[in-house]
Order: sequence, then structure tokens, then C-alpha cells
Amino acid sequence: MNTIGKIFCISLYGESHGKAVGVVIDGCPAGISLTEEDFAEDLNRRKAGAEGTTTRTESDKPILLSGVFDGHTNGAPIHIAFRNENIRSSDYEQFIDIPRPGHADFSAMMKFQGWQDPRGSGHFSGRVSIGLVAAAVVAKKILNSFSDIVFRTRLLEAGGSRDIDKAVYQAKESGDSIGALVEIRVSGVPAGWGEPFFDTAESIISHYIFAVPAVRGVEFGDGFAAAKMRGSQHNDPFIDLHGRTARNGAGGINGGITNGNDILLRVAVKPASSIASTQNTLDFSRDEMVNLEIHGRHDACIALRGAVVLEAATACALADLALVARAEAPFISNIPWRKS
Amino acid sequence: MNTIGKIFCISLYGESHGKAVGVVIDGCPAGISLTEEDFAEDLNRRKAGAEGTTTRTESDKPILLSGVFDGHTNGAPIHIAFRNENIRSSDYEQFIDIPRPGHADFSAMMKFQGWQDPRGSGHFSGRVSIGLVAAAVVAKKILNSFSDIVFRTRLLEAGGSRDIDKAVYQAKESGDSIGALVEIRVSGVPAGWGEPFFDTAESIISHYIFAVPAVRGVEFGDGFAAAKMRGSQHNDPFIDLHGRTARNGAGGINGGITNGNDILLRVAVKPASSIASTQNTLDFSRDEMVNLEIHGRHDACIALRGAVVLEAATACALADLALVARAEAPFISNIPWRKS
Amino acid sequence: MNTIGKIFCISLYGESHGKAVGVVIDGCPAGISLTEEDFAEDLNRRKAGAEGTTTRTESDKPILLSGVFDGHTNGAPIHIAFRNENIRSSDYEQFIDIPRPGHADFSAMMKFQGWQDPRGSGHFSGRVSIGLVAAAVVAKKILNSFSDIVFRTRLLEAGGSRDIDKAVYQAKESGDSIGALVEIRVSGVPAGWGEPFFDTAESIISHYIFAVPAVRGVEFGDGFAAAKMRGSQHNDPFIDLHGRTARNGAGGINGGITNGNDILLRVAVKPASSIASTQNTLDFSRDEMVNLEIHGRHDACIALRGAVVLEAATACALADLALVARAEAPFISNIPWRKS
Amino acid sequence: MNTIGKIFCISLYGESHGKAVGVVIDGCPAGISLTEEDFAEDLNRRKAGAEGTTTRTESDKPILLSGVFDGHTNGAPIHIAFRNENIRSSDYEQFIDIPRPGHADFSAMMKFQGWQDPRGSGHFSGRVSIGLVAAAVVAKKILNSFSDIVFRTRLLEAGGSRDIDKAVYQAKESGDSIGALVEIRVSGVPAGWGEPFFDTAESIISHYIFAVPAVRGVEFGDGFAAAKMRGSQHNDPFIDLHGRTARNGAGGINGGITNGNDILLRVAVKPASSIASTQNTLDFSRDEMVNLEIHGRHDACIALRGAVVLEAATACALADLALVARAEAPFISNIPWRKS
Repeated sequence: MNTIGKIFCISLYGESHGKAVGVVIDGCPAGISLTEEDFAEDLNRRKAGAEGTTTRTESDKPILLSGVFDGHTNGAPIHIAFRNENIRSSDYEQFIDIPRPGHADFSAMMKFQGWQDPRGSGHFSGRVSIGLVAAAVVAKKILNSFSDIVFRTRLLEAGGSRDIDKAVYQAKESGDSIGALVEIRVSGVPAGWGEPFFDTAESIISHYIFAVPAVRGVEFGDGFAAAKMRGSQHNDPFIDLHGRTARNGAGGINGGITNGNDILLRVAVKPASSIASTQNTLDFSRDEMVNLEIHGRHDACIALRGAVVLEAATACALADLALVARAEAPFISNIPWRKS
Repeated sequence: MNTIGKIFCISLYGESHGKAVGVVIDGCPAGISLTEEDFAEDLNRRKAGAEGTTTRTESDKPILLSGVFDGHTNGAPIHIAFRNENIRSSDYEQFIDIPRPGHADFSAMMKFQGWQDPRGSGHFSGRVSIGLVAAAVVAKKILNSFSDIVFRTRLLEAGGSRDIDKAVYQAKESGDSIGALVEIRVSGVPAGWGEPFFDTAESIISHYIFAVPAVRGVEFGDGFAAAKMRGSQHNDPFIDLHGRTARNGAGGINGGITNGNDILLRVAVKPASSIASTQNTLDFSRDEMVNLEIHGRHDACIALRGAVVLEAATACALADLALVARAEAPFISNIPWRKS
Repeated sequence: MNTIGKIFCISLYGESHGKAVGVVIDGCPAGISLTEEDFAEDLNRRKAGAEGTTTRTESDKPILLSGVFDGHTNGAPIHIAFRNENIRSSDYEQFIDIPRPGHADFSAMMKFQGWQDPRGSGHFSGRVSIGLVAAAVVAKKILNSFSDIVFRTRLLEAGGSRDIDKAVYQAKESGDSIGALVEIRVSGVPAGWGEPFFDTAESIISHYIFAVPAVRGVEFGDGFAAAKMRGSQHNDPFIDLHGRTARNGAGGINGGITNGNDILLRVAVKPASSIASTQNTLDFSRDEMVNLEIHGRHDACIALRGAVVLEAATACALADLALVARAEAPFISNIPWRKS
Repeated sequence: MNTIGKIFCISLYGESHGKAVGVVIDGCPAGISLTEEDFAEDLNRRKAGAEGTTTRTESDKPILLSGVFDGHTNGAPIHIAFRNENIRSSDYEQFIDIPRPGHADFSAMMKFQGWQDPRGSGHFSGRVSIGLVAAAVVAKKILNSFSDIVFRTRLLEAGGSRDIDKAVYQAKESGDSIGALVEIRVSGVPAGWGEPFFDTAESIISHYIFAVPAVRGVEFGDGFAAAKMRGSQHNDPFIDLHGRTARNGAGGINGGITNGNDILLRVAVKPASSIASTQNTLDFSRDEMVNLEIHGRHDACIALRGAVVLEAATACALADLALVARAEAPFISNIPWRKS
């Protein structure tokens, strides 16, 4: 489905070469200040134009179609739309017969039985993620109504190298693409968010993260390194009454519930599937292997633009967790340390 | 929430030292054969008793309380209950003041404001996962109504070593625990399952996987290695009309939709939090650091028993994806290769 | 589905002649006092034994299997089970070939393709509603955490008569059954509950009410009489700063949101389908009309026992609306009358 | 929430005097023919201009922003937008202090704490229902992929009279409004749709119906008359192997599941709240009773335009029930009459 969230509920729509893409946000509390300017910073981080990103540029101007009155959310669904511009639909027909390796061309053909929109990858385009970034602008405002919550997102490495600029340059030069590792750190999240058994903080965050195209893995805290560790190394002893821990191997989450320490996750982003160099793959219409060349505008490292999308996914997940926790909060406290 | 699934919908309940734990399954098609014997194999895989697992043993006998008539599912909710036996609730009170490092003691205290059941970790106990394993027995039967689907699950390494028996033995000897890496491979899944944008196959599977206690990371196909790769390496060229690919770096999923190749994922399981050796951590009631000793029955490597739980999580996720895909399947086909 | 509710989420299971029926409640805030005694009053109101009700009696003893610790909800799912006793499964086979008029026999046969449990109507039995009554005991406690909320439920008429005892007696004497009109009035509900567009207070309440077997109609406030009225008659002018209105033609709900006045609804309950007198209907196995006699224990007026079930449905609906409203409440107020 | 549906999932957005209103439809199977012309008939039925309807006219031209490719649904969300035109926002400020009787002004003020959009009733305007009518055009196409399904909707009476034209004329002349009774009959619905316990066909349909502004009551088949009937009168004996019944007191639904007979429901629509004549109500800012005059364009009988909206609500409900039933359909049949 294209709708997610129990309370903070977002619905994405749009195809790469359709008239518009956008998001409808439902369940946002009324009274939160919101203007079109609020979206500029995060949308800029997602923009093309930098080294290693596609040369397709778009105005990316958010249009607030509903849900805001007099500069504040009004309790009704917030619709943020983006016109599609700068569209070239010339070269998609070949991908119907020769599904691109690594793309959704084949699996979408099977699922939608040939009815999918093939122009510019249709609804599978990275273009659709702009709505998620827009929704997260609202999500972050909700989060900040609870506490001062700060997101710090960065690329740790690309193509296996920490010299990311160089790695991207080299990939581009060779008509190839590279994957990358993105870290997201969220400070200020209060203890108590997350709804186990099934809606643990990790479950909800990973659900959103794996919706972002090109993600291959998600880990929290020590992550895959924990598989190699001993309990005496991995456990995080508590050191103060706020629940701060000596280290943060749990990534700020115990038993699926936030513990007040930084939420810390890393995301493996695969190399972009569209590459300039030739690939040998099947022509399904003729049942023979052919050499495929994908022309057009490619990202050498999608994680450059994708980092803010992954941050957005995390923010939307946390906003929903926050509002659900608010709904279910006990009416009275029974914490023994605070009793007397 | 303790309920998950859009069509194949499962609800877990129970605490470690309560009267019973179990699962209620809703949305299972009628007419699927089901008896209490069907549960034996997977429940045995989850059982304690092997080297490196807790010595708490339970009968683990499934009681089919509803939803089955004359040896078949009848369309009503299927309730599978397990009595709790072999309970010792003696030693939990200390963990109210001194939350165990790595456990949910502190975060649950914050969320439930002191009202949580502290006996044997309450609803946070691994005991609750038995319901998930039971639900998966039904899920697998649904999956096999679509196609011959085979699960192969194994521990790749424990504590960083491929000699798993030895690693577990050593951890146990030293009063410690170790993490492990679990691989799940699912063969026979048809192309076309998964509901992007938000309910990609990876999103749904990871949602269930991260609900299983002690999971720190999930990766599909090449996973975190993809972050270091080039597109020309990572892309999977198609080689036959079934959509088989030359390699399987995507883990059987493109664009969030299954492509007919094996679903392949790896899960990082942390070392068990309860260890015999002493840990220095905060006594919240006195606001001072103390040495905590956790007595009782510990798992040296929870992944030994957890592997089948992770497989169960995957099976339940796939069953729901399968039924949702069935609901939304196009009424007629427009696949060009199949037209004439 | 057998699960309902966004936050206060209840799942029913069980068949009439199975081992047990019950309910699992998820999303209930921790810290609410709850014992098995709390259920006695409402369960008694649902009990058989009075004039005009079936002579099948059951112990109806609630068994709290999970979710309660030390007399309070603990934040985990609350499971309330009831053993089935006093079962006679002798005479159901004839209803497979000759579906009873007014019953679910035929439509269930079509939906479940013959796999449904036919014993005592299986999951379609009124027996299942006991779980709803149990859930409502918890729902009412949640509601009372917000405000003093009082339910007043009564039969307005049965078989068209206000002398209900007499009407029931006559129906029983003639081997027949009668319908009835039930009124539910809820005082103390604060203004602001209800989530239009789709989850208006009426939408949510009617959703639960129409789940109760035998309901044929629901109306709020003036209800069907409003269809015959003029706006100048039907509109409710406000008369004080609490939002009290001069009359209550809206049944306490404007624009799908509670307005602080009494919630007022009436429910049309059909006559029980099982009657002692002979009915001419189709034998599907022979494709010919036959005279059907339904032996066994019948309710002459199911609304006698059903009234508390309808009240329970309303209570569960309101509890979920209350918790959702809590989640989405604005963080700051902008009500002009309260500003200075 | 403004989103409804488990599989056929629709999300409404927009305010009366905002830039646009519309609907996003998710979960629609791919391959269904759809053009902007398909919407004309139902949108015309909802249009103003006839005797007794408001004189605010709008182009009501649907703009298909996504989800359709080459004249067919493509499996991605279908976004149908409508620009708002012909807006006059002059006179809403008085309703902040003097909430209009029968309107959502007061209850919305309480819920959204003053942040709601007051212009033209904001998101509470009947304008929003245009998205529901548009969604139903798609819903009806889905329904017709299952079977030939025909909707017949009509006003049975207005203001208590069967001479509806005359009743509307008189109401208008006297500066007043009148309620009406709407009947919806749906032929061709197969047996087997509906998901008890909670998602009975009546529960789902009534959920959607009560979301339509101004609905005060819903009844199926004999409806409230059933409360006055005997079982021997109300029961519907079966008369043929299709499950046809001699009469249709159940409105085509037994045990919450469709039985193959016509779905039959009646809806009580209240008189429009906005009337030209003076009303005595509270001025909250001054805490005194005042005479309120509501200027502007009023509907004398909203059911004239609302009938198609109620039909649309029913169609969307049935489409979701149909797709859910498809998901859960047994893989093999065990119906005894069909065995040999």
C-alpha cells in the first residue's frame, strides 16, 4: 500500500512522468505552524545537481493544497503536491521487452500484468520519494512538540571508501554507480516510544526505511557487529537516572522501546541500477540474451540524494510512534523511584 | 501493537509467568488442513534443552481452541494456546530497581510507568515468540496453497566463528553469551508479491523480523556488501523467461516486489542480555552504581532457538503479502510476451 | 475481520461448540484496575434464564489469561477467555442441506465453501458476543479515566409493544420470536471525539453495532424522524458555554464529532431467526421445498440479552475514539472565547 | 481518519475554500479502463442547479493526476483532483463566535481547539464528498469485474411527503430545509461478501454511509420495521439453488455476509442545517443568546444531491468487501450440494 501510519498517516501518489507527485498527510494535530518555506531545506538536500547526481532538475516547489489555514495545520488532511516538469519519455519502450537488471521492470510486469506505467519507471521512480521528504517536514514539527529532537544524517562511505567525493567521481568516470552506507542519529527522543510485540521501534523504522528504493540492509546500534560480540561487550549498563547508558550498542532501543539514548541506525544503499555501461541480459520478447545500454541521466551514487529520504523515513516513523505512545500513555504513574 | 497483518492477521498475547501464551490468527482461508500434530516440528526446533540453551523446558503443547473443524480451518479465528508451566518467579524484584543492561526493564518501566509485569520479563519474554512459530505453521500452509515454497534457515556463525558448537561452549564456560548470524532462504515464492511504496516485501519482512527480540540488523541479498559494490557488480541480469537471474544480489526482490528468485535474508542476532558474569550498572532507587548478578537459567546463544522464530516471522510476512497480492491481482493480463 | 479498533483494539475468537470463546484486548493503557469480579455485572445482564431467553445456561466465568498484573492492566494484551460448557451438538447436520431462514447457514456456506463449523452456528453464534461484553468492561474503565461517563440502556418496545413482558410471553407461547427496539444513552462524553471524514462518531459506533448479530437498523438523535423534519425543527441551538443544546436531535454528535451532549442512539433488533414453528424453505441437496422444524433452545426476544451487547459495542467504539482523539489533540489551544 | 478501506483504500482531502479537493485511491487492481469521461454521469447527479439545491455551481471537472496509463489503471495510486472555484469567503467569521446550530462549528472548535478552517465549513463542507463520488466510479468498475452489479438509488420521500418536488418547493419558500429518505438497492452482488465478526457487510456499509454528512439513520431490509415483527414474518425462506429468498427482509445479508439477493438499505438524511430563517442560539464570545441569520446559498433538501453520494459510499464499501473476500476465498470447495 501507499499509505502508512496508524495516527500520523501518509499517502504517496504519482509517477515519474505523470502530471504530479505528492503526499496527503492525515492525523497531524492541529495548530502546528506550516508554510511552504518550511520545506525548502530538506527538499534542497534531496535535489539533483551536485556531483554524482542526475542532471534532471526540477523546481521541487511544494504546493500546499489543503490542511493549512492561516499558517497552521487545521486538523484536516495536509496535501503537498509537486508538479512534474522536465520530463523526457522517449526511451522507455525497450524496457518492456528487456527489463533492466536491478530495476522493478520485471517484477512490476509480473505484479501488474503489463499495466504498469513504464515511463521513467512510473511509480517506482525515485521521484515519488519527494512526498516522503515533504511529509517528514511535518513529522519533525510534531516530534519537536514533544521534545527537542535533532537529526544528524551522514554518508559514512561510498563504494567502500570514506573519500566519498573521489569514489563518486571514479564511478561516474567509468560509467558505473556505487553503493553507500548512511548513518542516521536522532537525539532527544524520549524513553517509551515503540509498541512491541510487532510494532517495535526498530520494526516501524525499518518498515519505512525499506520502502525507500535501493535499500539493502538496516542495522541499529552495534548492528551486524553484535552478531560477533559477547553479551558482556554488547550490553549497555545504565549510568544515570535519565537512563543514559555507558555505550549505545542497542541504538537507543531496548525491547523495542526507546530508552532515551540516541536512536542510531545505519542503512546500506545499493548502487543505482541504471548504469551507462553495457549489460548482458534477457530480451523476453525474443527469449535471447542481448546487450542492453541504458541511455539517459543517471545518478552515480543515489545515496547522495537518498540520505535525506532515509532521514525522512525515520522521522515519519518516529512521529507515528510518538502519537501512538501518546494515545496509550498510562493515566497515572507507578514508577517506584519517583514515588516518594 | 500485538496484532499484525492486513489479511493474514495474527495477535499475540501472554506473559512469561502468566497462565498462558498464544496467538489468534484471523483471515486464514477456510479449508486448510490443520491438526495439533502439524505444529510439532517447528515447535521442537524452538525448544530448549540443546547445548547453549536455557534449561527451562516446557511441554509446548499447542491447544487448538478455535478456528478448526473436522481437521480443517473453518474461516473463523484460529486460536492456538500454550499453558505456562515450570515457572519460577522468585528473583524479579531486584530488576525493578536495577534494570538489567540490554533488557527491556528500563524502557518498559518508562513506557508503562511501572505497571508492567516484571516476572520473567513479562510480555517481553522470548516465551511469547512461541505464538509466532505456531502462526507460521498456518502461514506455511497458506504459502503452499500458492506454490511449493521451501524454507531453509541456518546459523552462519556465532560469536564471529563458523564453528558454532565450540563458540557456544566457550561462551557458556565463561558465563557469557554470544550473538549470531542467521540466514533465511525461501525458494518457490512467485514473482509479484510486495506492495510498494510502503509495503515492499523487504518492509513487511523486516517489520516482522525486528519484532523478534534480540534482532540488531536485517539485510537482503548482497545486503551491507552492496554498499561497497558497483552497479555493474550488484545488478542481477535476467537469464530465462521465468525471470531467473544470473546471481541474486537483490535477494529475490526488485522494487519491493518478489521477482521469482529465492528470497534471501540474513539477520544479526545479539548476544543474550542475561549473563552470569557481574555487570556494573545503576541502582535507580539509590542512584548509585552497583554490581548486578543475574541468577537463573540463561541462553548462551539465543539464535540457536531463535532461528525458527525468525523463519516464522518471514513466513507470516510472506503469507500476508501473498493474500494481499491475491486481492489486488489484475483481472486480465497485458503482458506483451504472452499475448499472441 | 475479527479485530477492530485503531488503538483500543479487540480480537474475538471462538465457536459456539468449540472449547472456548474469548477476546484479546490490545492497546489498553497500563495502570487500570481490573479483576475478574469487574465483569460480573455486565455478564449477568447478558445471561440466559430470564423469561423469553434460551434455557442454555453457562457459567460465563471470565478467565484472565494475560495482561493483568497485581490487579492492574500491565500494558500487554488482555486475554479474557470463557470455557464452553453445556454443549449439545446433536442436531446441526440437517442445516447443511436446509439452511435455516434468517440464519447465516447459507451465506456462510457460500463464503467458506462448506468448511464453516456448523455446530450451534459456529462462529456465528450469539455466544461469541460474550467477548465483546468483556472487552467493554475494560472500555468503560478507559472512558471513566477521561470523564464520568454513564451508560443507560433500555428496551423501548418489543414486537411493537411497550408492554414488553407480555409481548415476549405471547411470542413464546405461539412458538415465535419478536424483534425489539433498544435505546442507548451515554452521558458525560466530552466534546471532540470522532474523526471525520470517514471515522465519524456515528460511523465508528454503527460499525460496532452492526457487528452484533440481529441488528437491522441504527439511528442517532432524531434518527429516521429527521427525514420528515424541517431544519428549523431539527437544528439544536446552543444554550450554554459547555455547548449544551436546547434539544438533542443530533444525538450528541455534530459533523461526526461529539458535542458534549448525551450520545443517543436507537437500534432495531430483528426477531430471532430460530423459531419453533414450521417454515417452508429449500432443501438444497434435493432442490425441493420442505417444511423445516428447528428444535432446541430458542430466545423469544434476543434483544433481552442483546441490549448489554449493544451497549458494549458502543462502549468499545467510544473507547477507541477517545484514545485516538487523545493521540491527535492539539498541543496548544486557539479557542477565541478562552483566550484572554 | 480520512482514509478508509483495507484493500480498496481511499483518502479524501480538501476544504471548501481551499485550492482543491480530491481523492487518492490505493489498492485498485491494474488493468481497469478509466478516463475522465467516466466520471461525468455520477458527478452530474451530485451537481447543484436543480430546484432545491444551492446556486453555487462548480465546473466539477475531474483531473486524473496519477494512477492511469494509456486509459487503464496502472496499479499505482489513482489521484482525482477538483479545483475549487466560485468561492466566496466573506461571511464565516461570525460563526466562530456563534456556532451554527446543527453544524460542526462548535464540535470542530473543541476538537481542533480553534485551528480548524472556518471558511465555508472547511473540511466539513459537502464539497469534500465529490472525492467519494469520484472514488465510487472506480469502485463500480471493480464491482463489475466480479459480476453485473446495478445500483438503483431513489428518494422515497422528503419532509415526510412522497411528492418530493412540492415538498422541496414549500421548504424553500418558507426559508427552511427538509430531510429525506433515500433508498439504495444493489443487484447482482454475489453471495459471500462480508467479514464478520466486526466487518459484516452492514458494518462496513454503515461505516461509509455515516461518514456522509447529514445522515441520521441507516437500516437494511425490513430495518426498523423488523423491531415490530415476528420471526415467522421476518425470516426469508430460500426458494432456489441460487439462494434467492421469497422476500428480502434481511436486505440481502445474513450473518453479516451477502446472500446473493439485492442489497437493500434506506438512509435518513436530516434537513440541511443552514436555513434562511432566524435561529436563537448562543454567542459564545459574549455568553448570551442571540438571533442568528445565516446568509448565503442554501440547499433546501441536501438529499437531492446527496443521494449519489450515499450510493457512492455503498459502492466503495462493497468494492473493499469484494477484494477482501477475494483475498480470503478458500482454495478448494467443500459444498456438499456441488460435490457429486
